[in-house]
Amino acid sequence: MTVASILKHKGARVETVRPSATVQQVCDVLAGRKIGAAVVVGAAGEVVGVVSERDIVNAVSSQGPASLTSSIDEIMTRDVATCRLTDTSEALMELMTRGRFRHVPVVEGGRLVGIISIGDVVKRRIEDSDLERHAMQTYITQAG
Amino acid sequence: MTVASILKHKGARVETVRPSATVQQVCDVLAGRKIGAAVVVGAAGEVVGVVSERDIVNAVSSQGPASLTSSIDEIMTRDVATCRLTDTSEALMELMTRGRFRHVPVVEGGRLVGIISIGDVVKRRIEDSDLERHAMQTYITQAG
Repeated sequence: MTVASILKHKGARVETVRPSATVQQVCDVLAGRKIGAAVVVGAAGEVVGVVSERDIVNAVSSQGPASLTSSIDEIMTRDVATCRLTDTSEALMELMTRGRFRHVPVVEGGRLVGIISIGDVVKRRIEDSDLERHAMQTYITQAG
Repeated sequence: MTVASILKHKGARVETVRPSATVQQVCDVLAGRKIGAAVVVGAAGEVVGVVSERDIVNAVSSQGPASLTSSIDEIMTRDVATCRLTDTSEALMELMTRGRFRHVPVVEGGRLVGIISIGDVVKRRIEDSDLERHAMQTYITQAG
């Protein structure tokens, strides 16, 4: 299963914010859209970071109420792992498990074309794995 | 694969907080322990809720800086889905996918004995699924 196939089901919509947005504004975006992370893009639409619920909790912990008026530029994750449409769900899950993050932007030709969460992968992978297991079990039963 | 087997690998440690803790205090617990949720327990140790990063972002969005000094009693998720040691990872993933939550407390005999995150399940399920697929592929190859 590829990133392209997961995106086909969930849609390509990605919530983006600018680095100058405040932490409060990003909370409003995440809560309003019921999502766990937004992609931070520069003036040319290029990916400059990801800001997640975890980044926000960490900022509140270290700076208290003042964190909410600071810009996300100061708290976002800059070293962003991205993936491509042809990457497999297996590679993606290993990336997420190792890096302990839950959202990976999909980038093709320098352009942001989607975002995949761990929940998206799990949902599709269960379906996929169940189908494959069922097919093999049928084969084994018929062969026996 | 059962909840018991996942817990055996990740350990039974669960971070708990009281309903009177403030949102700021919970941010400190989550950030300090690098976790995404804490279980809220009453005076007798009974589970009364779960408070996650998402609950905190939602509270900040609706109440602004004042949210940080309010008690988690006001923002936690009360209608908590719990699981038992004998539940399967498949049942757990379906529960998480349907309910759109990422943490499920493990309760046995009214006592909190662990917590499972979507990341924990994914990690073990990949290992498990790869093993099973490999075993079946070997069988099919040898049978052919």
